[in-house]
Amino acid sequence: MFRTNDQMLCLFESYLAQLEIPEEPALLYAPITYSISGGGKRLRPLLLLLSAQALGGDVQAALPAAVAVEVFHNFTLLHDDIMDNADVRRGKPSVYARWGENVAILSGDAMMICAYKSLSRVAADKLPRVMEIFNDMALKVCEGQQYDMDFEKKRKVSVVEYIQMIDSKTSALLAGSAMIGAVLAGASDDDVKRIERFATELGLAFQLQDDLLDSYGDTALGKKIGGDILEGKQTYLMVQAMSRASEAQRDTLRTTHSDPALTPEQKIERVKAVYDALDVARITEQQISQRFERALAIIETLSTQEELREPLRVFARNLIGRKR
Amino acid sequence: MFRTNDQMLCLFESYLAQLEIPEEPALLYAPITYSISGGGKRLRPLLLLLSAQALGGDVQAALPAAVAVEVFHNFTLLHDDIMDNADVRRGKPSVYARWGENVAILSGDAMMICAYKSLSRVAADKLPRVMEIFNDMALKVCEGQQYDMDFEKKRKVSVVEYIQMIDSKTSALLAGSAMIGAVLAGASDDDVKRIERFATELGLAFQLQDDLLDSYGDTALGKKIGGDILEGKQTYLMVQAMSRASEAQRDTLRTTHSDPALTPEQKIERVKAVYDALDVARITEQQISQRFERALAIIETLSTQEELREPLRVFARNLIGRKR
Repeated sequence: MFRTNDQMLCLFESYLAQLEIPEEPALLYAPITYSISGGGKRLRPLLLLLSAQALGGDVQAALPAAVAVEVFHNFTLLHDDIMDNADVRRGKPSVYARWGENVAILSGDAMMICAYKSLSRVAADKLPRVMEIFNDMALKVCEGQQYDMDFEKKRKVSVVEYIQMIDSKTSALLAGSAMIGAVLAGASDDDVKRIERFATELGLAFQLQDDLLDSYGDTALGKKIGGDILEGKQTYLMVQAMSRASEAQRDTLRTTHSDPALTPEQKIERVKAVYDALDVARITEQQISQRFERALAIIETLSTQEELREPLRVFARNLIGRKR
Repeated sequence: MFRTNDQMLCLFESYLAQLEIPEEPALLYAPITYSISGGGKRLRPLLLLLSAQALGGDVQAALPAAVAVEVFHNFTLLHDDIMDNADVRRGKPSVYARWGENVAILSGDAMMICAYKSLSRVAADKLPRVMEIFNDMALKVCEGQQYDMDFEKKRKVSVVEYIQMIDSKTSALLAGSAMIGAVLAGASDDDVKRIERFATELGLAFQLQDDLLDSYGDTALGKKIGGDILEGKQTYLMVQAMSRASEAQRDTLRTTHSDPALTPEQKIERVKAVYDALDVARITEQQISQRFERALAIIETLSTQEELREPLRVFARNLIGRKR
C-alpha cells in the first residue's frame, strides 16, 4: 500500500494543524500562525514525504521533518518580503505589511527556531545526519537570496551564475527535503544522492518555467504577463538574451524597463521583441524539458518498487505542468 | 586538574578562531565574521564550559556547543540592532549601520543557522536533548525581546512582568548555556536543574545591576549615566518606582523624558529625585544581593568536588563585580 499525492497532502495538513504555536506574546506568535495557515502548495513537505515513501520509509516518522521544511520555507518568505518591500503574499497582506518590519524580523526568527524544534523530533539516531542536511540546505537558501540581491546591482550576470543562484535559492530546499526524506527512510548513500539530483533538476526546471511563464504565460489564465521585465529583473530569459545580444539589443534589454517615455505595454513589447529575435523562449523551453526528462530518468534508478516511483513522477509532472 | 576562567576563555577563543566561515557571497558572510570577531565578554560560552567542567565533563567536547551559544547571542544582537536602530555595537558601527538593513536581516539569519551547524557537532547521543534545551532557550530569548518592545508602548508594567521579561531576555540564554554544559557532562537531571537555577538567578542579578548602574553608576569610570531615563525605558528602577509612587510622582516618572522644556541633565535629576524619595536604588541593590547570594548557595548543592565549584564562584563574582 502506498499513499497517493493527495492522500499524502491530507496527512501532512492534518499533522500540521496539530502544531502547537504559543499564544503569547501575540506579536511574536500570531504572525507565525498567520503564515503557516496561509496556504501554499506544500511542495517541500510533500516531496520529503514522497521521497521517504519511495525509499521504503515510515511516512509517519517523517512528518516532523516535513513540518520543519515547510515552516523554514515560510520563514524565508517572511524575511524575503521585508527585503523586497513586498506587501502581498498569497493574496493576503504580507506579515511585513500587516504588522510592520520589527514584528516581521522577530517573528521570522522565532519561526526558524520553530522549524528546528520540529526537526529535532525525528528519530534520535537519524538526527545528526538530518541536521547536517538541513543546515547546509538552509545556508544555501540564504546564499541564493544574497546572490539574487547582488544581481540587482550587477551589470552582467552570466548564464552559469544565474543557474548557480537558482540552484541555491530554489533547488536547494527541494533537494534537502528529498534527501531528508530518504535519510529517514534509511536509504543507501547512493539513493540519497540520486534523490538529491532528481530534486535539484526538478527545482531548476520549475524555476526556469516560472521565468518563462512570467513573460510567455497564458494570459487566458488571468496571469499578469511581464512583471519581471517591468522590474528589470534578472531571469533566465534575460541572461540568455544578454549573452546572445548585439550591442544595440543589449542596450534595449538594459534600459527599457527604466525608460520613462514608454508605457508598461510598450516596455514588455520591446523586450519581448528582442527575446523573440534571439529565440530565448525556445532555448528556455528546451532547458526545462531537458532537466525535467533528466529528473524523470533519475526516478528509474532508485532502488525501489515500481508502484512507489509513480507518486514521484506525478509530483514532477504536476510541478512542471505536464501531462506525461 | 581544572581550568581557571582565564584559561577557559583562551581555550574558547582559540577554538572559535578556527571556525570556518565561507567567503562568498561576501555580503552574507563578512558581517558574520565581523560580528563574531568583534569581541564581547564571551559570558555564555564561558558559563557553558565552566558548567561542563564543574559537573565532570570533557571540556573539549563541549566547545562546539559553546560556539553555538556565542554565535546565537551575536545573531540576536545583530537583529536587535535593526529593531532598535542602533548604530554602534561594542564601539564599532553595527552591522545594520555599516551594511544596511537587508544585509543585516539576511546575514543574521545565516548566523543563526551557523549556530545550529556548530551545535550539531556535539556527541550524537546528546544531540536530541541539547537541541531541545537550545530551541527552548532560543524561543524564550525572542519572547523576551518581544515583551521588551511591547513594554515601550505599555502605560504600566508591573514588577512581576518586568522580572519575567528579563528572565526571558537575559537569563534564558545563560541558563540554557549552563544546562547544555551540564547535559554534555552527563550530569544528573537534578544537577541540570540546579545549574539552571544558578544561572537564572545570576542572570537576573546581572540585568538588575545593569539597570542600577545606568542610573547610579560610577561616573569616574567614564560611563554615561542616565541613558535609560532619557529614553524613557522600562527598567527595574522605573517599574519599582511606579509601583510605589504617588499620583504626582507617577506623573513625573511618565512625562519627564519627553518634556521639551528640560535639558538632559534636568531630566535625569528630576527622575532620580523621585527614585531617591522612593528608595528604589536600595531596593534594587537588595534584589541584586539576594539573587547573587542565592546563586552562590546553589553552587554548593551541585554534586561535584570543591575545586570545580570555585571557577563558577569566580564567574559569578566577576559578573556582578563583587570581591567575595
